[in-house]
Amino acid sequence: MKVAVVKENAPGERRVALVPETVPRLIQAGLDVLVEAGAGDGAWFPDSAYSEAGAAIVKTDDLYKTADVILTVTRPDEAQVRRLRAGQAVFGMLSPLIDPRLARELAGKNVTAVSLDGLPRTLSRAQGMDALTSQANVAGYKAVLIAAAAYGRFFPLLITAAGTARPAKLLVLGTGVAGLQAIGTARRLGALVSGYDVRPASKGEVESLGATFIELTSVASAAGEGGYARELTEDERQAQQAELTSHIARHDVVITTAQVPGRRPPLLITEDAVKSMAAGSVIMDMGASELGGNVAGSVAGETVVTENGVTIIGAQNLPSTVPTASSSAYSRNISALLLHMTADGALKIDTGDEIQAGVVVAYDGVVVHPAVAQLIDLEGGR
Amino acid sequence: MKVAVVKENAPGERRVALVPETVPRLIQAGLDVLVEAGAGDGAWFPDSAYSEAGAAIVKTDDLYKTADVILTVTRPDEAQVRRLRAGQAVFGMLSPLIDPRLARELAGKNVTAVSLDGLPRTLSRAQGMDALTSQANVAGYKAVLIAAAAYGRFFPLLITAAGTARPAKLLVLGTGVAGLQAIGTARRLGALVSGYDVRPASKGEVESLGATFIELTSVASAAGEGGYARELTEDERQAQQAELTSHIARHDVVITTAQVPGRRPPLLITEDAVKSMAAGSVIMDMGASELGGNVAGSVAGETVVTENGVTIIGAQNLPSTVPTASSSAYSRNISALLLHMTADGALKIDTGDEIQAGVVVAYDGVVVHPAVAQLIDLEGGR
Repeated sequence: MKVAVVKENAPGERRVALVPETVPRLIQAGLDVLVEAGAGDGAWFPDSAYSEAGAAIVKTDDLYKTADVILTVTRPDEAQVRRLRAGQAVFGMLSPLIDPRLARELAGKNVTAVSLDGLPRTLSRAQGMDALTSQANVAGYKAVLIAAAAYGRFFPLLITAAGTARPAKLLVLGTGVAGLQAIGTARRLGALVSGYDVRPASKGEVESLGATFIELTSVASAAGEGGYARELTEDERQAQQAELTSHIARHDVVITTAQVPGRRPPLLITEDAVKSMAAGSVIMDMGASELGGNVAGSVAGETVVTENGVTIIGAQNLPSTVPTASSSAYSRNISALLLHMTADGALKIDTGDEIQAGVVVAYDGVVVHPAVAQLIDLEGGR
Repeated sequence: MKVAVVKENAPGERRVALVPETVPRLIQAGLDVLVEAGAGDGAWFPDSAYSEAGAAIVKTDDLYKTADVILTVTRPDEAQVRRLRAGQAVFGMLSPLIDPRLARELAGKNVTAVSLDGLPRTLSRAQGMDALTSQANVAGYKAVLIAAAAYGRFFPLLITAAGTARPAKLLVLGTGVAGLQAIGTARRLGALVSGYDVRPASKGEVESLGATFIELTSVASAAGEGGYARELTEDERQAQQAELTSHIARHDVVITTAQVPGRRPPLLITEDAVKSMAAGSVIMDMGASELGGNVAGSVAGETVVTENGVTIIGAQNLPSTVPTASSSAYSRNISALLLHMTADGALKIDTGDEIQAGVVVAYDGVVVHPAVAQLIDLEGGR
């Protein structure tokens, strides 16, 4: 079975689905590894490193002609999809619940589609395959570096001959994987950190990182399925916002991380809350997207400064900005999943397996993933 | 005595010489404080904060008409110098040893010039006035944040479900104030840090921060006057470079901090050394300036990526990019110096005082600072 790594085409995307370090693991399992020339350049992995690891560097045409399985980070673009042929399989973060059209198209071409973002994240044997977690981890780290660099004061308490600088007060809203890594990184840098999440169970995790957990009284538990927070009702959101605003106002830096897959992210910091913050404050909106963000006025990929002097940074594909780390982790995730689905040197689709049931989106000409199929039905596009 | 804070005019300069917090200290000493409208905007100090602290917000014309002492961060520009009149005094970082023309011009106008960069830095009673130290401290902190944000991997050792990420190996060349703060900040972030300086005495300081001191055998001690390293001879530099290159090659991130006041910074990382580094490595050149930098190929204010994949960042006025912290520290420095030179509510110039001998550049129509006067003589411009 020939496993091929494509060069990512999305604008600004620097990651690569497989890094040289992981190549021997696939070869050992009896697979051939092909790498599109230049695929690792953005993540600082030259073609020579792949060759040395045992992969063959191939031209784009040859790759699509000969590959059995194609590994990608993000959704293949139209040109890439056109090149795919029946019987091939694509592994990647295909976001079928955000836009199911790709799944339908791949099914129509009889291409098997495997999406890592469907992984059952709470299953312990799947944790090594969890790309959403590994990429969120990178994003949480980088979010703090960006926020620290944008902030006009020090993060740590510093005592110098010129006097004492007080530590920054930093608040993380949403303490999933990204939020916890943000808390850890901000703590490393010496900030005074608080964390908040609608799931009270995260209190222990927040406190174990040396941060303070903010407990709101206005919202009951909002733990949801698959390790996500459930979406709040409108009343709950308003009550939460009013109480949160008072906390937000007394912090120097706020990082928001709330995302709901396939939906508009919840607004956690309203215009009033932004106005309540002091000049020089910084907000990093990790929920920023084309659908909106967690912060009023945030724009994905842009930094705006409000009239009252608050800098709002809209994140955009943070994992791609730490490309070596994010690719290395992703490479381990995708190869673990691939090997889990491989038997005797060939792909073996079995949607009776709990992991495969989550990730296999299209197979044998059909969109087999129930949630994706339902979404396509809803959109009337089947 | 009316002490006035001007709005900085230099491109990209966001600092302000006095922050609201320090205003009461000057008022208590019997001084009036005037602030040019908008002076603190870049450092997130609104006019209202100065008013509340007891300062008067004034228009530019009124400021120059009525002020006895003018406080600035950097050198006043031509337009500002034109407005100065006989009998006024200017306090700031005037860099007279880099360009003595301003000192000559101010002396010609019978304006008293006091430059904080001439402070006798080793004098313990002067440490609270040491702006070079306070600003270098900010620069060292920020340099690490920028380098970390540019680096493609994590700084800390991170153990996750997707495997273990090894910590970054970071080397700081030049362990003065900026270098030590860089070491401390990189250590906070979890990097494995080494430090090197031509002054063997800095070994203890480096090690006390949890970093490894690199000892070279090719260069003897190079401790100089005033807390600086002395300039090395050409032979010493070459020997140092050859030995350093082997150390540089095995590091992921290198931060260089070597500056010699008024001179071209020493080249610490040659083109060969840059070529010896792995793709994805990052160099932050804090010595970058119009006169050149510590790193072959660095450009002040720009980021370049070499053919072998090394990112070289040329620093440019890093303190200004952390404007609230740097202004707060500078404000304490400049006000401590001003109060040291004030008696009975008036400026009292006494070059017999060790501190004043270092900082007073022009007084009573004459360039009184011997080193500056000598430089003017050398340049034949007197």
